[in-house]
Amino acid sequence: MRPSGRQPDQMRPITIETGFAHHAEGSALIRVGGTEVLCTASVENRVPPFLRGKGTGWVTAEYGMLPRATHTRGNREAAKGKQSGRTQEIQRLIGRSLRAVTDLDALGEMSITLDCDVLNADGGTRCASITGAWVALRLALGKLVATNVLPRLPLRGQVAAVSCGLTTEGAVLDLDYVEDSSASADTNFVLTADRRIVEIQGTAESAPFTEDAFDNLFALARKGVTELFEAQMAAVEAVEKKRI
Amino acid sequence: MRPSGRQPDQMRPITIETGFAHHAEGSALIRVGGTEVLCTASVENRVPPFLRGKGTGWVTAEYGMLPRATHTRGNREAAKGKQSGRTQEIQRLIGRSLRAVTDLDALGEMSITLDCDVLNADGGTRCASITGAWVALRLALGKLVATNVLPRLPLRGQVAAVSCGLTTEGAVLDLDYVEDSSASADTNFVLTADRRIVEIQGTAESAPFTEDAFDNLFALARKGVTELFEAQMAAVEAVEKKRI
Amino acid sequence: MRPSGRQPDQMRPITIETGFAHHAEGSALIRVGGTEVLCTASVENRVPPFLRGKGTGWVTAEYGMLPRATHTRGNREAAKGKQSGRTQEIQRLIGRSLRAVTDLDALGEMSITLDCDVLNADGGTRCASITGAWVALRLALGKLVATNVLPRLPLRGQVAAVSCGLTTEGAVLDLDYVEDSSASADTNFVLTADRRIVEIQGTAESAPFTEDAFDNLFALARKGVTELFEAQMAAVEAVEKKRI
Amino acid sequence: MRPSGRQPDQMRPITIETGFAHHAEGSALIRVGGTEVLCTASVENRVPPFLRGKGTGWVTAEYGMLPRATHTRGNREAAKGKQSGRTQEIQRLIGRSLRAVTDLDALGEMSITLDCDVLNADGGTRCASITGAWVALRLALGKLVATNVLPRLPLRGQVAAVSCGLTTEGAVLDLDYVEDSSASADTNFVLTADRRIVEIQGTAESAPFTEDAFDNLFALARKGVTELFEAQMAAVEAVEKKRI
Amino acid sequence: MRPSGRQPDQMRPITIETGFAHHAEGSALIRVGGTEVLCTASVENRVPPFLRGKGTGWVTAEYGMLPRATHTRGNREAAKGKQSGRTQEIQRLIGRSLRAVTDLDALGEMSITLDCDVLNADGGTRCASITGAWVALRLALGKLVATNVLPRLPLRGQVAAVSCGLTTEGAVLDLDYVEDSSASADTNFVLTADRRIVEIQGTAESAPFTEDAFDNLFALARKGVTELFEAQMAAVEAVEKKRI
Amino acid sequence: MRPSGRQPDQMRPITIETGFAHHAEGSALIRVGGTEVLCTASVENRVPPFLRGKGTGWVTAEYGMLPRATHTRGNREAAKGKQSGRTQEIQRLIGRSLRAVTDLDALGEMSITLDCDVLNADGGTRCASITGAWVALRLALGKLVATNVLPRLPLRGQVAAVSCGLTTEGAVLDLDYVEDSSASADTNFVLTADRRIVEIQGTAESAPFTEDAFDNLFALARKGVTELFEAQMAAVEAVEKKRI
Repeated sequence: MRPSGRQPDQMRPITIETGFAHHAEGSALIRVGGTEVLCTASVENRVPPFLRGKGTGWVTAEYGMLPRATHTRGNREAAKGKQSGRTQEIQRLIGRSLRAVTDLDALGEMSITLDCDVLNADGGTRCASITGAWVALRLALGKLVATNVLPRLPLRGQVAAVSCGLTTEGAVLDLDYVEDSSASADTNFVLTADRRIVEIQGTAESAPFTEDAFDNLFALARKGVTELFEAQMAAVEAVEKKRI
Repeated sequence: MRPSGRQPDQMRPITIETGFAHHAEGSALIRVGGTEVLCTASVENRVPPFLRGKGTGWVTAEYGMLPRATHTRGNREAAKGKQSGRTQEIQRLIGRSLRAVTDLDALGEMSITLDCDVLNADGGTRCASITGAWVALRLALGKLVATNVLPRLPLRGQVAAVSCGLTTEGAVLDLDYVEDSSASADTNFVLTADRRIVEIQGTAESAPFTEDAFDNLFALARKGVTELFEAQMAAVEAVEKKRI
Repeated sequence: MRPSGRQPDQMRPITIETGFAHHAEGSALIRVGGTEVLCTASVENRVPPFLRGKGTGWVTAEYGMLPRATHTRGNREAAKGKQSGRTQEIQRLIGRSLRAVTDLDALGEMSITLDCDVLNADGGTRCASITGAWVALRLALGKLVATNVLPRLPLRGQVAAVSCGLTTEGAVLDLDYVEDSSASADTNFVLTADRRIVEIQGTAESAPFTEDAFDNLFALARKGVTELFEAQMAAVEAVEKKRI
Repeated sequence: MRPSGRQPDQMRPITIETGFAHHAEGSALIRVGGTEVLCTASVENRVPPFLRGKGTGWVTAEYGMLPRATHTRGNREAAKGKQSGRTQEIQRLIGRSLRAVTDLDALGEMSITLDCDVLNADGGTRCASITGAWVALRLALGKLVATNVLPRLPLRGQVAAVSCGLTTEGAVLDLDYVEDSSASADTNFVLTADRRIVEIQGTAESAPFTEDAFDNLFALARKGVTELFEAQMAAVEAVEKKRI
Repeated sequence: MRPSGRQPDQMRPITIETGFAHHAEGSALIRVGGTEVLCTASVENRVPPFLRGKGTGWVTAEYGMLPRATHTRGNREAAKGKQSGRTQEIQRLIGRSLRAVTDLDALGEMSITLDCDVLNADGGTRCASITGAWVALRLALGKLVATNVLPRLPLRGQVAAVSCGLTTEGAVLDLDYVEDSSASADTNFVLTADRRIVEIQGTAESAPFTEDAFDNLFALARKGVTELFEAQMAAVEAVEKKRI
Repeated sequence: MRPSGRQPDQMRPITIETGFAHHAEGSALIRVGGTEVLCTASVENRVPPFLRGKGTGWVTAEYGMLPRATHTRGNREAAKGKQSGRTQEIQRLIGRSLRAVTDLDALGEMSITLDCDVLNADGGTRCASITGAWVALRLALGKLVATNVLPRLPLRGQVAAVSCGLTTEGAVLDLDYVEDSSASADTNFVLTADRRIVEIQGTAESAPFTEDAFDNLFALARKGVTELFEAQMAAVEAVEKKRI
């Protein structure tokens, strides 16, 4: 049995709370079990130097973890003076994932920065970040449409992410911290609601794994994101309804 | 009238939510009006090099602000590679304030780090940090007593902080962001429940001010911290009751 | 047709030159078309702090690119004062890939650092780095066995990597720089000679892609690594023969 | 008795030597007992980005200590690669103190940087820096008037600073290093010649103190700055006389 | 006898391979005995800020060493986050040496950066870098003339460098690593083909030396660079011939 | 004529004031014309890691310049977060120069750090630093002998430095800032009182120069250091006399 008592293909409970950040154009506090990430979308009327004057927009992400989001306190990256390789890897992944479903040309010369800050960590923080960041992005874009800054949502679809892994229980969905620490393989799937692939990261932590194992993990992920897509839409619709 | 409609000597609503951080030995999410700071206390069985072997403990603090805690997004200090002078000044203040009421000898060779992370900012974040950090520290110390690590609370009293300032409305208590930006003088008082002074910081933002004005600000502060001390005790007692 | 005139499933010419670095315990200058990476293995009799006294070894990697390995000169990371997120991501990948086929317990308390420095870049530098680093690692370990430091090779198998992508020509194997810049999806497969998976990284650069497309890319990769495994073994055998 | 044999309300000898720095628009080498700080004022015809085009000027400060200004050599901050929190706190204080008496609008789009470098330290370096920096600033502004760059001195008055503290001798004025190290409370008062307050920093080093104690410290400070204001004026007048 | 068996006035074998770097406007892989440095020249159509609009060009250099170019692995400077004092000293020397023979006015508003990266080190890397960098620079300038970007070579002559030292064998030419480590004096001479001096650096490593000793070292250097000038010209002529 | 009206072989006035730094084991404020450098020697009872347990000592140097030591204010290196290449080059030179005349074995496991901080700059700061640092070192060592920490002075002799250059007036001694900025060649000679060479640095700033020119510069330097040696001895003797 899994440490949490879950079935192999069972996600942890998901909640998405919008508006937690008072000032951001869009925000989502996503909870996937004990993992909590505050995702905010900040809109700015300028683009990075390499895009200036090209009439296209930009979506980027930054990721952080509060020092005591974890079991033992980690050093504050601001105090250490640099972001770890892990942090940079994760924030690059979040940014790519959201750009893949955004119509940057339709956005025009604006930037949207997604800040994903982990308040509590229990495994799967990068996946929760992507899933929550999509909601924050969607809400910020919705506000731009509602205020007539944009004629329509510059979004090509919905994106969410989930981790799967090989543990002593076999292939399981949505690893928590205990499972993540001991899994022999760890995979992250970033998928779209129209069943396409945005990003796949599969890593043999200790021993290389077979293609069959990989196929099983993929099937679990497809099941898992379905629940995430529903939670995303419910959160967005609740906000949009209030706006009317 | 004050922008918020408050009386000159009126605090904003105060709430202190404990247990928001799942893993910390003590935590308090303090809200003073629109300012929200998550304070966590992390206990470690070691002290900094300059104290090793002296049989005494250490209490220190770190301060941070989520990039979009403010009206416009600020740069992430971890990405910039250094903490601003303002950040360092604030975290040094928080640390000193809490050490002033801690019996470091009675703590023994342990360190407690208070992390104060601003989730939403609307003025007075350093004062809210000190007030919330005392609760987190008190809870962590209470747990050390409850688990027989310490024989008694190594605390000399209760400390809280509030800002006062000179605005066009005269001397006012508990500045919010709008008032803080336009005040001609800004003062922070860190006071104890037995009516002593831990730290006073008074700054003429644009024009030097008189001693009488300073006395008025001090009187307001004394009134303000009374409410904070009550909120602190209520939060601590609610946790301690549950423990029994 | 592909810009290079190659067939969709055709690798670029591969050569692996050993001994280019005079001092390293193992070295391989790998050339895959116009991409050239100097891989060196450095053996040290100590392990990082987190492994001390555990009787197990460590394999890690660092990656760099000479400033003018590319069409236009890039800034030197040593002069900028930090490694880019891309660099860190790549060197973490190389390290994980080699650890996955190394028996760290059998290595004992020694570290092997694989330095992969790109002398000339034409796409696929991270894959060439992994493939070449395995040769450098294998030669260094062979030397440890030949000098009786180790009783047997602490290696579980052979690992190599290749990139595949979706271009206007469809799914193609071993992207060069021109293809890499314009591919709509880019995937890196790190695979073992016994047909297992060490790492998969698939990224939709501009548009999410289908599972079928992913399967095609995977099949190409499997074909491509077969050639790399042969080149690796030929290089290793030539050195081992000389040793006798 | 105080370690130095001084009365509780007795300042150390004060001298202010102008012109020590050959190139600065204004300079003052201030000596307060064994504390020596070289203060220079540098005028530049530009303002920081946040003030450009607003027709107003800027006054800022930087603080440093020579490595062997102290009893035991401290590390050079340039070699360590960052300024300590203490250094940043002090230079922010100096800058605020001088801006509070400067008419930045009357200064126009110019910047004046006050560099305060401690050549010898024996307590009270931040206070000596403020006091000496005012002289350097005053001389630089005087030169701008004398050369018809400005029509009149853009200064609202005179500012000086002194530290007071609670020691085993009670409340004492102008702490030297020995007293500073053992005081139970340490306060810095930045005051104007027209009896106003620019900045107050009071800190309980080990034990919170009473309001009465604070009032005593304030009264000592008021007495102390009177001597500093005289020394400042004497130094300025000696220079101005020579100019005529 | 010298450790390598060479005569006191004997250089190590010299080879210069051009075109090793595929993308650079000029490149030379210089080998002096076991020391190998890849030198590339990168041409850019802009100059540093301090030269903008002055109609003159710039030549600068950067120097690096692969981590395992040496007997024991050195830390990667990009990972450490800064270039050592030694690295900076060397790259400043290379830049000055090449600027001394370049007609910067005739170059016009272009920059040429010489990257000198040591692939294998056995003493004399800074001298080999200067000698090889001249070839890379010469080839890049030749290409600018061949493509009619420049009317003529903006070069005033040929520059090369060699080290000499005082060892237990007396004054010797072209120190290798073993000699360099134990020499009592180490000198680097950067000289021109028309017998002028560009740079002299003489250092007593352990004991001050006499003027006579210095004169002997200088004479050896003059002999040594003669061979280097020939190798440089041969490499350049081979390329220029091919161009026709 | 030279800008200062000096003869080609004429030094600027030299004064050396000892004891300027109150706490250092030895200190010298050296003035060579308008160049003023405060040199302090700090003795510590430990050596750098690479020397531990070898029974030998260490002498090292650090160099800095106050931001407004120059005509226009330079950025503070501590604020920039790194020492420039020029600073590192100079402090390495000072350290080597003093080690060359120190008997490190006789010093035993102690370190002496020479801090050379330029208070006012008018050319020749590195040479003044070396000359002044020798006095500070000599005084610190004298104190170690006087207090019976060492049986005798671990010094092999006296070292001083001077710059010479080729200007429109020909070869001249002891360049000031105006000459230094326009010289076509700039040389620094670090010489001993027994007529030996510690370090020679000759640089063609704009045009390579002849061996004859170099010989002339060398002859001037030999003349110049004679005066410096006298000033050094006078300063040392004045202190030693007082000690008796």
